[in-house]
Amino acid sequence: MSRAGYFDDSRREYVIETPKTPVRWINYIGTRSFGGFIDQVGAGVICKDDPGLNRIVKYLPQRPQSDFNGETAYIRETLEDGSCTIHSPYFVPVLKEPEDWKCRVGLGYSIYESRCDGIRSRIVVYVPLGENHVVRHYEIINESDRPRKLDLVPVVEFSHFDALKQFTNADWVPQTMQASALRRTDGTIVGVKQAAFMKKGEGENWFAASGVPVSSFETDRELFLGEYGFGGWANPGALKSGELTNTEARRGNNIAALMLRLGELAPGRGRGLFTFLGQSENADAMADRVDSLEPMDGGTLNLRRVTDAWNDSLDRFQAETPSPEMDSLVNIHNARQCRITANWSRYLSLYQLGLGARGMGFRDTSQDVMGILHAAPDEAKDLLRMLLSVQRRSGSAMHQFFPLTMEANEGDSREEPDRPDWYGDDHLWAVMAVGAYLRETGDYEFLEEDIPFYEKDPDGDVIEKAPVMEHLRRALAFTRENTGAHG
Amino acid sequence: MSRAGYFDDSRREYVIETPKTPVRWINYIGTRSFGGFIDQVGAGVICKDDPGLNRIVKYLPQRPQSDFNGETAYIRETLEDGSCTIHSPYFVPVLKEPEDWKCRVGLGYSIYESRCDGIRSRIVVYVPLGENHVVRHYEIINESDRPRKLDLVPVVEFSHFDALKQFTNADWVPQTMQASALRRTDGTIVGVKQAAFMKKGEGENWFAASGVPVSSFETDRELFLGEYGFGGWANPGALKSGELTNTEARRGNNIAALMLRLGELAPGRGRGLFTFLGQSENADAMADRVDSLEPMDGGTLNLRRVTDAWNDSLDRFQAETPSPEMDSLVNIHNARQCRITANWSRYLSLYQLGLGARGMGFRDTSQDVMGILHAAPDEAKDLLRMLLSVQRRSGSAMHQFFPLTMEANEGDSREEPDRPDWYGDDHLWAVMAVGAYLRETGDYEFLEEDIPFYEKDPDGDVIEKAPVMEHLRRALAFTRENTGAHG
Repeated sequence: MSRAGYFDDSRREYVIETPKTPVRWINYIGTRSFGGFIDQVGAGVICKDDPGLNRIVKYLPQRPQSDFNGETAYIRETLEDGSCTIHSPYFVPVLKEPEDWKCRVGLGYSIYESRCDGIRSRIVVYVPLGENHVVRHYEIINESDRPRKLDLVPVVEFSHFDALKQFTNADWVPQTMQASALRRTDGTIVGVKQAAFMKKGEGENWFAASGVPVSSFETDRELFLGEYGFGGWANPGALKSGELTNTEARRGNNIAALMLRLGELAPGRGRGLFTFLGQSENADAMADRVDSLEPMDGGTLNLRRVTDAWNDSLDRFQAETPSPEMDSLVNIHNARQCRITANWSRYLSLYQLGLGARGMGFRDTSQDVMGILHAAPDEAKDLLRMLLSVQRRSGSAMHQFFPLTMEANEGDSREEPDRPDWYGDDHLWAVMAVGAYLRETGDYEFLEEDIPFYEKDPDGDVIEKAPVMEHLRRALAFTRENTGAHG
Repeated sequence: MSRAGYFDDSRREYVIETPKTPVRWINYIGTRSFGGFIDQVGAGVICKDDPGLNRIVKYLPQRPQSDFNGETAYIRETLEDGSCTIHSPYFVPVLKEPEDWKCRVGLGYSIYESRCDGIRSRIVVYVPLGENHVVRHYEIINESDRPRKLDLVPVVEFSHFDALKQFTNADWVPQTMQASALRRTDGTIVGVKQAAFMKKGEGENWFAASGVPVSSFETDRELFLGEYGFGGWANPGALKSGELTNTEARRGNNIAALMLRLGELAPGRGRGLFTFLGQSENADAMADRVDSLEPMDGGTLNLRRVTDAWNDSLDRFQAETPSPEMDSLVNIHNARQCRITANWSRYLSLYQLGLGARGMGFRDTSQDVMGILHAAPDEAKDLLRMLLSVQRRSGSAMHQFFPLTMEANEGDSREEPDRPDWYGDDHLWAVMAVGAYLRETGDYEFLEEDIPFYEKDPDGDVIEKAPVMEHLRRALAFTRENTGAHG
């Protein structure tokens, strides 16, 4: 393959022109507070606060690219003889060749534009600023010259919240997974809610639609696939005709599949709708809000807020050089990558799978801070606060920490019991990062801000707080007191 | 589904009559030294010594039953116009409906009998006694009324030896996986060898065929599936025509696919062949032996040795009651289950995935010993030796142990730091199990056999050995010295 697409700098996007990229191609949506990555065929990992400890979607990167991987949608056509055909606007898992295809990798959003079997699909995926849900805005248009009777069936496969246990525990995990209908106060079903039973009232996932009523749903994976799972994701038994079974799965492989009847579309006509995948303390409380989350007349306001925030950040530094390619790299793509990295660290990617062993690295995040000082100084400052709060009173730093709980550990330094349980350089990176922050922002008051050290008493309370300046002094003192054989 | 099959007690088998069982149905082949489980559609986990630390096949039970899961075979027909059609004699992953189907779950073997598209397949799968390889004996017969030009393409997907890292590490694991051709001294390619590079010369996997020459091979999964993996297991791009690419994958998703040209089979004619999946210190040393591992004239001798050993064990106790169902349960199926359980403990199943966290339990194995005393007293004695070697000098026992390394740990008792790091009952189960062994066998000399306690000095050497009787005395003494508040 010579190339997979092109840079569209006017929209600050990369445009992938085929679903069949040599390896998975991911974009990040939302933030570490709520979001994750989605790949070029619409699947991905979505989580809240921590990919290892609070994961929502079940994604298995070991699978071949052809396979369903946690999220997709089917477009089903009912023909005159009553039989049905299906394709996926994301290509996977039906694998019916599209007539054309684009995936626009944007700033905080991805757009999937395709045409298959005369049906045009446009899907915009993003997490609205500050919200705990993913929006997928679907527009389905009949571009053929005959009327088409269509349904849209979006599907999510849920993960157990403990991402590693989902893979390692086949006994207890499936027994804890529970799904049921998501109902408005008036009883109307607007989607599905799901949680492990010990997370009820605390971290309940929900998947709902607005713009087109939910005519039926399915939460049991094997019933959706049919024949005890042998139907397969490429051709699920449940889509051969009629409605889904409205089964509320009290254990097992929980999915959320919604039957959305688009009706008969005349040539040139289309329908729009939204789906929402979120997590709330109480999913039921979201049911009445679903129809007002995104306005049906365009629904671009929340998306524009996302792109505006990204553009504001990038616009703080724009270079003009003799090379347009250099400008593109510096002004858009590298700057964007720095901010993504500062947000996710090396905790969630196709390289570090976010299964809970690693968390965020002290050294990594110190470096990441320095990449976003000009573009997102407030985010940088918040990260510095997190870093200094896992510094020890001795001045040394914990090597890695988990953003949900802010628990930290000594990393691989624990592997050699006769060696120190700290890294010689971790704490020094914080000195460098704070220094860079001060030089960029002039915010010298930060040096006086009190931040706790990592140690806690038996009640879990902080033992000692100190101003940022004292944190830095102790870091330098720690190194002076712990020099090696050659000083 | 009213039933999935029937008991064939004359052959001591359960016969499954459909590939589409409600949940996966597994049989065990080989032993913990080499073997594992295979499911009703021919896939499974194969490992040597320890499923967590030395795994060979990549099996993901989280996948739907429709999906390829580590091992299968394709039968490819080349039609007169040069185009090809495929099906799988195991049903998965092509999912072409068979004309008839049986999976015989036997004692140490499974037999897959099916007919699809006029082609009869019979596949017998077993691990010969004492060997470190799985045999699959294929017989393919043209039962249609026209000549058929057929190829058989068996495929294995390899796991990294560390079963958990295979799932959790997407960075280092794929870089270590390496596969290449397996050649006889004369240069003829007889299959594929594979290992992580740090296991070269130590634990090399090999997959080879005899009876039909290997005309080409593939070790790169994405090349086999085609289109960067988008071809998919149900319809791999590599099978659309011609030969495999003979690619030797130096990293990535290692598979072993062999192209075995069966030639044109006249109506009523068939071909037989064997495949072998094994592990050796030096895979090359197996290449010259492949053609002599199983005789082509029937190849039933090694299988008969397996079933003879099982039958000898079961024949030691046969009851006759007024109920034939009770006889079947007691004489065959429960007895078989007890021996399987004693061999594998709760370390490898669809319930405990054998990913390395658990190992074998002290209490579990003590109980398992008591289930096989009459049927396999030598196996029982070996297990008692293992158990007593993880007893501590204090008399208490380690809670679980890993059979490959015989390393042990305190299990969940470690979770509460202010509580003892032992279980109150573990060590007492060994007293009961040894007592039961003595009553069954009269082998009182065992009480005098020296067995080490678990503690090792810094060089890893045993600190203290004692006769079995002393182990039991210390167990009882430990409980007397550690009674609770109520004595």
